[in-house]
Amino acid sequence: MATPHAADEASIRQLIDKMAEAIRAMDLEGLKACFAPDMVSFDVGGPPLQTVGAEAKLKNWETAFMVFQPPLGYEIRDLTITVGGNVAFGHSFNRLTGTMENGDQIGPWVRYTAGFRKIDGNWFIAHDQVSVPADFGSGTALLNLEP
Amino acid sequence: MATPHAADEASIRQLIDKMAEAIRAMDLEGLKACFAPDMVSFDVGGPPLQTVGAEAKLKNWETAFMVFQPPLGYEIRDLTITVGGNVAFGHSFNRLTGTMENGDQIGPWVRYTAGFRKIDGNWFIAHDQVSVPADFGSGTALLNLEP
Repeated sequence: MATPHAADEASIRQLIDKMAEAIRAMDLEGLKACFAPDMVSFDVGGPPLQTVGAEAKLKNWETAFMVFQPPLGYEIRDLTITVGGNVAFGHSFNRLTGTMENGDQIGPWVRYTAGFRKIDGNWFIAHDQVSVPADFGSGTALLNLEP
Repeated sequence: MATPHAADEASIRQLIDKMAEAIRAMDLEGLKACFAPDMVSFDVGGPPLQTVGAEAKLKNWETAFMVFQPPLGYEIRDLTITVGGNVAFGHSFNRLTGTMENGDQIGPWVRYTAGFRKIDGNWFIAHDQVSVPADFGSGTALLNLEP
């Protein structure tokens, strides 16, 4: 192994791939399997500032899925993972793309940060923060930035 | 110790306290001591989506400090830390408050997520994401939410 944590990093990358595949398939059960039950999410849309628990996070995805007509795309760029023991964090740029009911194509790039925990030998997403930056002068959310 | 990682968690809480004190004092050198040199930040304001390196993160703070008249307040609520080996992640709600040149008092609550690394026995902030949620319907940044 290249580093002591190479196997764990590979497992976490598989977890993120599994999450992306579940999003593309609008598969809530597949998504649920990626999340720790007590997951705290600071999600891209609001209010509120946070949701607590995997079920609440799945509600956010359920709402997102209702906005789109399939097929959905989910792209991940520049994923970086840092592992220590049974804890890790990672960050990337992610983009959900799809067609809305009114025909609009949307797909802002978001900043994605996740905290991971290894529980009984398997890695789960225990925390995430997903956002676009704010423009404080105008009070707008910057939905058109490219990585 | 309550847990095997209690000493590390205490050290990380001291690091966050040190960061908050440096912000209140507008002390860029004090802030620099909290950051890993290769820190990647997904900061609350933009563009861009990210900054790379502690120096770039300090530029964001320098800009923020120019907007305010002292004294600054920096409040941290619900800080949760998860430690594994030499890696940890944490999240909280943070609020910077101060008086702008035009007399306005501002201070939105932001979601704060950090990735920490222990380097030569000392903990540093290696990554952060700081944000408010977006309202996708209006395209606005939600600057008035309470934790």
